[in-house]
Amino acid sequence: VTLLIKTDIERGNAWADALTANYPELKTVNWPYKGDPAKIDYALVWQPPRGELKRYPNLKAIFSVGAGVDHLASDPDLPEGVPVVRMVEPGLTAGMSEYVVLAVLNHHRFILDYAAQRREKVWAEIPQLPAEARQVGVLGLGVLGRDALETLKPFGFRLAGWSRSPKSITGVTCFHGSGGLGEFLAGSDILVCLLPLTAETTGILDKETFAKLPAGAAVINVGRGGQLVEEDLLAALDSGHLSGATLDVFQKEPLPKKHPFWTHPRVFMTPHIASMTVPESAVRAVVANIQRLEAGEALQHVVDLKRGY
Amino acid sequence: VTLLIKTDIERGNAWADALTANYPELKTVNWPYKGDPAKIDYALVWQPPRGELKRYPNLKAIFSVGAGVDHLASDPDLPEGVPVVRMVEPGLTAGMSEYVVLAVLNHHRFILDYAAQRREKVWAEIPQLPAEARQVGVLGLGVLGRDALETLKPFGFRLAGWSRSPKSITGVTCFHGSGGLGEFLAGSDILVCLLPLTAETTGILDKETFAKLPAGAAVINVGRGGQLVEEDLLAALDSGHLSGATLDVFQKEPLPKKHPFWTHPRVFMTPHIASMTVPESAVRAVVANIQRLEAGEALQHVVDLKRGY
Repeated sequence: VTLLIKTDIERGNAWADALTANYPELKTVNWPYKGDPAKIDYALVWQPPRGELKRYPNLKAIFSVGAGVDHLASDPDLPEGVPVVRMVEPGLTAGMSEYVVLAVLNHHRFILDYAAQRREKVWAEIPQLPAEARQVGVLGLGVLGRDALETLKPFGFRLAGWSRSPKSITGVTCFHGSGGLGEFLAGSDILVCLLPLTAETTGILDKETFAKLPAGAAVINVGRGGQLVEEDLLAALDSGHLSGATLDVFQKEPLPKKHPFWTHPRVFMTPHIASMTVPESAVRAVVANIQRLEAGEALQHVVDLKRGY
Repeated sequence: VTLLIKTDIERGNAWADALTANYPELKTVNWPYKGDPAKIDYALVWQPPRGELKRYPNLKAIFSVGAGVDHLASDPDLPEGVPVVRMVEPGLTAGMSEYVVLAVLNHHRFILDYAAQRREKVWAEIPQLPAEARQVGVLGLGVLGRDALETLKPFGFRLAGWSRSPKSITGVTCFHGSGGLGEFLAGSDILVCLLPLTAETTGILDKETFAKLPAGAAVINVGRGGQLVEEDLLAALDSGHLSGATLDVFQKEPLPKKHPFWTHPRVFMTPHIASMTVPESAVRAVVANIQRLEAGEALQHVVDLKRGY
């Protein structure tokens, strides 16, 4: 059983080592691969060149290194009939929930305001609201969205979630579809985007969405840069309708040096580090899935390519 | 039953309203009080003038507005035999745990480093550690320290605690006394101080303590400013032995404008706002305690003044 790895070189070696440790019978080869394409059974990839995966006639499954599969679903030459598997692994999920809690608490505790006061050496208390007085609304109720909500529960925020299709989560007010979006947004003091990037979610964080949020709301984007209309966010921050934003993903990455987000005082930003797949824990998920298929069982976490996630 | 309130004026009125709503038979008066001192049964105070509480001959109990009682225990003219009650109320506890989680996650996720990179417009990932790779050590295992540890549990950090006397907490490695301090510090990658201010804890966060922490450790002080030797912290940050500090309390408050903490890039600071007593929830604790005493029962959360907390 041979698996082709295409990620950055440093992480590629970490993956190969971890895979071999967990599945000694597995042979791994790193992209670019000069051998016989017919020998490749599986591919574990991040942002492969367009059409690249079509070169392997015997590919049984394509594993995404990251949680998002837009880098695959957007390839018009993706081989037909080969299942694409999203990355679901505990390290990635835990890292994302850490980041979401950190970002939510930063907005809840007025950290952007305290940072502004600090720059002016102003010592002043900003009246604090209890967590129960705020609703945190999570857009996207996949593995990451649901875990973020679970991790937020002990803090006592009112919790809401929105997804394309109906979901039910204990302790979370769930909304769905375009019909439920307005009511969901109207109650969300802190909005967290954890949606997959699809045609439907591209540009979903735009001026119309922001206008539906309560005055003073904060926006956290840990989905994909393509979901945020950046100029609409800047306008909503500068008008004062939104109190702040935490951004980890951007339309263009690395963020261009001239982009106003680098210096905007109402923006907290990080360079797409909210969560990374952890090879040591992720290989167990990949190996288990390969062994499932080799034993004639069904793969887990297969993407619906028509839906885009 | 008459209760004297001495806090700042704005919060004094909030307290009076909340007390009356919960205990209609209670009469509240605000300090400074010009009436007959013999009519005062209880006092709810924050930083009363030295000797002030001795003026009331029939005082049955003194309630601290805040969690700390150093503002009372340090008064040499405190009336003898009148019990002093610390503030234990869910709003204060929840606020502190929010702040501790926020500060721990900021250090865990290298937010000071990302902020430094942002100032230089540098887009670069800093390799992340899983939470299990870090020990968070909490100095002080009172109500606030224990709740902070509980709130940190779901994130998967290794947890340790230190207190003067032995304690046992599920999922937390507990150390105690001067004999246990060295081992506790040696394992604590992120150190949180939630100790009461006493003669023993004054200056406990000093160069000897910092030297025992692992290289690259971070320090969070949400106890009292008097516990931190500020010049020792600056030296440990500037030498690189400590990676960062989160400070909410200071030797002198408001922090003087010329103090290096205002601009230090390895310090995250806030103006003593980590947690405030919430009058709406705190009055229920105070009222329940008064009613307990009036019914001949024992008060809860009475301070041991010899011990200082």
